[in-house]
Parts: sequence; structure tokens; C-alpha cells
Amino acid sequence: MNTLTVDLGTRSYRIYIGQSLLGKAELLQKYITGKQVMVVSNETVAPLYLKDVLGMLAGFETATVILPDGEQYKNLDTLNTIFSALLENRFNRDCTLVALGGGVVGDITGFAAASYQRGVSFLQIPTTLLAQVDSSVGGKTGVNHPQGKNMIGAFHQPRCVLIDTNTLDTLDDRQLAAGLAEVIKYGLIHDAGFFAWLEANMDALKARDKQALAYAIERSCTIKAEIVAADERENGKRALLNLGHTFGHAIETCTGYGSWLHGEAVATGMLMAADLSARHGWLQPESVKRAEQLLQLAGLPTTPPDSMSEAQFRELMSIDKKVIGGKLRLVLLKNMGEAIVTGDFRQDLLSETLNMAGKNA
Amino acid sequence: MNTLTVDLGTRSYRIYIGQSLLGKAELLQKYITGKQVMVVSNETVAPLYLKDVLGMLAGFETATVILPDGEQYKNLDTLNTIFSALLENRFNRDCTLVALGGGVVGDITGFAAASYQRGVSFLQIPTTLLAQVDSSVGGKTGVNHPQGKNMIGAFHQPRCVLIDTNTLDTLDDRQLAAGLAEVIKYGLIHDAGFFAWLEANMDALKARDKQALAYAIERSCTIKAEIVAADERENGKRALLNLGHTFGHAIETCTGYGSWLHGEAVATGMLMAADLSARHGWLQPESVKRAEQLLQLAGLPTTPPDSMSEAQFRELMSIDKKVIGGKLRLVLLKNMGEAIVTGDFRQDLLSETLNMAGKNA
Repeated sequence: MNTLTVDLGTRSYRIYIGQSLLGKAELLQKYITGKQVMVVSNETVAPLYLKDVLGMLAGFETATVILPDGEQYKNLDTLNTIFSALLENRFNRDCTLVALGGGVVGDITGFAAASYQRGVSFLQIPTTLLAQVDSSVGGKTGVNHPQGKNMIGAFHQPRCVLIDTNTLDTLDDRQLAAGLAEVIKYGLIHDAGFFAWLEANMDALKARDKQALAYAIERSCTIKAEIVAADERENGKRALLNLGHTFGHAIETCTGYGSWLHGEAVATGMLMAADLSARHGWLQPESVKRAEQLLQLAGLPTTPPDSMSEAQFRELMSIDKKVIGGKLRLVLLKNMGEAIVTGDFRQDLLSETLNMAGKNA
Repeated sequence: MNTLTVDLGTRSYRIYIGQSLLGKAELLQKYITGKQVMVVSNETVAPLYLKDVLGMLAGFETATVILPDGEQYKNLDTLNTIFSALLENRFNRDCTLVALGGGVVGDITGFAAASYQRGVSFLQIPTTLLAQVDSSVGGKTGVNHPQGKNMIGAFHQPRCVLIDTNTLDTLDDRQLAAGLAEVIKYGLIHDAGFFAWLEANMDALKARDKQALAYAIERSCTIKAEIVAADERENGKRALLNLGHTFGHAIETCTGYGSWLHGEAVATGMLMAADLSARHGWLQPESVKRAEQLLQLAGLPTTPPDSMSEAQFRELMSIDKKVIGGKLRLVLLKNMGEAIVTGDFRQDLLSETLNMAGKNA
């Protein structure tokens, strides 16, 4: 088992990574406040792992909420079902929420914990690769609005994160690939060496080699933890983690939440960011090619849907959270392993990138 | 004009109290971040003061949301109308929300500001006495759930509070009385001298004497600011501000939000707390009598609805935010001007208090 610490002062917490952690009750129990524990999961994950998790909670007063599975349910209505369950079970301000599932379960449970009685404890047990390397680290919680992804939420840090790599055995190939998109992101924005390692080990990752997966998860979490520790509330550097997300969120919102997986939209968005960077002469065409090949090797899409027009992209991108003073800023690449947030890009070149789909069609 | 500071480190802010402040654009403008300002008000207050407030925002990109008036609309659905308006107007993370209205508008707008894009700036212009002395100070924001008052929310401090005492001219008598309940609370929990001043000046307050009102508001805000500065997130002393609220919230939830005004429910709840304190021998019967007389002089109810049973009270009180480890704690009085939070009260005496209505009927 490996242990990482996300260093956030009084809100610091540990991430445990290893096999068969779901059997280790003491890991979970020492972070529980109060006696009441609500486990929130979804209809796909609950049949697989809920029993194990409840088994770790012997002696506590437990209750469960099972959400429908999918990004399209990450909204205020689903959030309210958690509040209703908490109130029906008379859960008090010293209760603990446990998120058992992927990014949607984690984000919505975290926001429920941030808002219930103005804030209660929560723990994360991410069961998808994407949640393990991304949404479980850094305390971003929230739900979608029909007009914008993750537009409603809070920063609320978990008290611990338990990553049992065995849970990846039950993940379908498409979900695994979606997680690999975020793993590749860390190489692109921060660590050219890790990117090269991914190129050399993508076959092993896709074959679910446990050692390779554990290393990729640990390296990803370490990079994210470093960046978050430097800028918890995203006033600066943390925005780099959003490589590909401005384009990707627009794709997710436009195509209807759940149609494209988050990781798939981010994969395409990252290639669009790389493309735009190359058009400015900041990134070598060779690096764009490497990114495209690695994403495709992982089984990810790299061109936006044909149906999306430049106008639709621009409309949806105008409410991105990185907009300041009405000016859109994008995460772009200066080099392999080196990202910047900038509003100084050329509109004509952005238009060319936004029309990538048409060109590829 | 008087100025108070709520001392909360980097989240400190100022409260301006005086006549005709709505004409002083510079007071508001220096606290606005970005260029986009959303004014949230309700159908009662907007026709009276929205024009003045928009007049203070010349040069900014403004939009407005007008909510229906009443506690029954303080819910997630109404909250979502604010998010929709923000997104329709393409408001970004550097926008500012302004709450113009009473406690409901302030609480819901504050929670919208806490949650939109995970947190944007907000300013308070409270137009009811209750909002001026209570909900505008301390950063408690949120909405109700059908099963519990203020069960969903966040701590989110405003960047400034503008209290224009002229707005009290348009307040109806019942709303004025509801505000006086919270004013009397500060005397009961913290300042016997202020309580005596209120006894001597209640007639002037009810006659809307501007000087008396300004003094009552300033003294109330000062006491609340002191308590909040010592315990922003209510881990201790801040709970004292909840005198009467555990009983009061149960009345509000049981009778349907909006039937009893918050201040009316708190008035009755405070007398129930005083009654229970006296039954333990902690408070002199003489003090209970003084509290009852002052509340009644203010025009407030002091007995719970006949329709509420002890069982209903106990059921609703069991999800109070002050419950720890399954144990209900109440704010009770040890003396005039001296409150405590305690779980050490006798259940048989609580039963007697909860049956006050029957006894009075």
C-alpha cells in the first residue's frame, strides 16, 4: 500500500492506494466523525462493492443511497434525494458521508456533504480510474446545470481517499480509457518523462497490469496533489489541471450529459488545445502527433463531434469558469510537460481549431 | 452613518448603518468584483428599492432576478432560478451578487453566491429589521428542505452590508415585530442592560423612531459580530445565537414555511427556552415574566400553536443542527443576559414546556 498526503493545512488528508483496501476497516474507521454514516453509491457499483464497504462499518449506524448511473443524473434533483435520505434517517451535523463510485458519485456526494447542515464530513472510495486520478483529489464538488457543466458546487475536501486498485477489475474498457485520458493529461501539463513512460506502458495499462496501473495512479495523484496544495481555490496554477476541459465541457454540455464520457470529451479537448498551441508555434507538430497517437492508443476520441459548430463551441465556452472580465482564457501547451493559462491567443487560430471536426470529416 | 467591522481575518467585512445609504453609490461600488452584477430581490421589495440600487450600479453590466415573496419559496427550486439567470446572462466567476430584501432573499442569494461556479462575491442590502439585525451578519446562507429548516447551505461571508434605515418605513407592522424578536434575543443572551433599554424604548421602536431603531440595530449587529468573530463556523459559542431557534424551527417546519414568520416562531421559542430554564431553577420566574411581557409588547406570539403535539416537537427537534452524538442540545438561560448550550436538561421538564400550548389553551 502507498500513502500520499494532500497538503492543505488543517484540511490536509491522505490517499491510500493499493490492492484489497476494501477489507481494511481500520483505514476507513479512523476518519469517521460521529456515529452515523451514509454511503452513497450508484446502481452499477453498489451490487459489486457496497457489501464490502458496509462490512467495514460495523458498529456504526449506517444508511445507503443508491443513485442512478450516469452524468445526466448529476443535477440538483439527484442531490436532493441525498438530502431527503439524510433527513429521513435523522442524520445530524456530526455524520459522515462516504462516496462509493466514480466521478459523478464523488462530485455529488461531496457537494451534499459540503451543503448538508452547512457542512459535514466525507470520505471517498473512488472505483473508476478517472475518479481515482482526478475527482477524488482536490475537493472540487458539484453538480451540472443544463446550461453548463459543474456550474454549481463547492470546494470541500474529503477526510481520506481509499483507492482499491482491485475495483478496476470490474471497470468496462470504455470507462478505463476515459480514466487514461486524465492520466495522459498529467504527462502533457507537468511531466514529459511520465508522458514517455505512458507511451512505453500503454499496452500494459490497457491490459490492466496491476503494477502499471498502481504507478500511473500514484504518479497522477502526486502531480495533482502538488498543484492543488499550491492553489486550493484555483486562483492561479490549479487552472492548469483544466487542460482540454473548456473544449471538453462544451462537448459534454452540447451533446447532452452522459453521451460522451467526461474523459472522452477531455481527450478530444486536449488534442484541440494541443492543436491550437501548435498553430501559435508554441508546441512542435511532433508533440501534437505524439499526443494524438497516445490518446488513440488508449482508445479515446480525438476529434469533436461533426454536429458541433464553431458558434456552439464559442457560446458554451463563454461561461467557462476561467473567464475573467469577459475574456476567455485557455490552458495551452508551451512544450511537452509544460502548460500555461492564457487569454493571449489568436481568434482566427481558435476558429481553425474549433473547425477541426469539419476538417476531419 | 455608523460603521461596524465583522472581524473574520481575510473574510472580514463592514456593515454600514444609516439613513439614505441607498443613494451612496460609492459605498457599494468599492466592494464589487468584476463588471457583472446580479441583483436578487423579491416581488415586494423590488418595486420599492430596485431602481435605487440599479442607480448605484451605473457603469456595470447588471441583471436582476425577482423571486416570489415568502419563506415557502426558500428552496432548491427557487435557488435554481438564480443559477439559470446567471447562466443565461453568461455571468462569470468574477461576478457579484447583491441581495436586496429580507432574510429569505439574503439567505438564498448568499447560498447562490457560495455555490455558483463554486463561489462568487456577494453584497447584502437587507430591507427588513430581521435581516438587518440577524441574517445579514455572520455568513450563514441556505435554503429549507420540506423536512427541516435551513438544512441545506453554506457559510459564505458578504463583502459588505448596507443597512439603510429608511427602508424600515415601508415595512409592515408584523414584519417589524418579527425583527424585534431577534433584537430582544440579543438582550436575553448577552446584555441585560440592552434588555432593560428595550423595555424602556419598545414604544419608540414600535413607533419607528429612527434614532431608537438605529441604536437597536447597531447594538444587535455589534453583539452578533462579536460572537461570530469568536466562532465563525459554530463549533461553540455561536450556537448561543440560536436561543429559541430549535423550538422555533420546529414550529416553522410543522406549520408550513411562511405561515409563522421566522421572528414570530423564534419569539415563542425563546419563551419556551426561558420557561424550560426556569423549570430547572436556572432562571428566575420574574425574568421569564419580563421576557414574556416585552415580547408581547413588541406584538409577538409567546405560545406554540395548539395543534402541535409534544411528539411532533420532539420529532422535528431531533434533526436540529446542534445535535451531537444523537443528543439534543438546547440554548437555555442561566440568567438575564447569560445563555448556555447544554444537553443536560431534564426530559420530564422539557415535556412540560412542550405542552405549554395545551396549558395556555
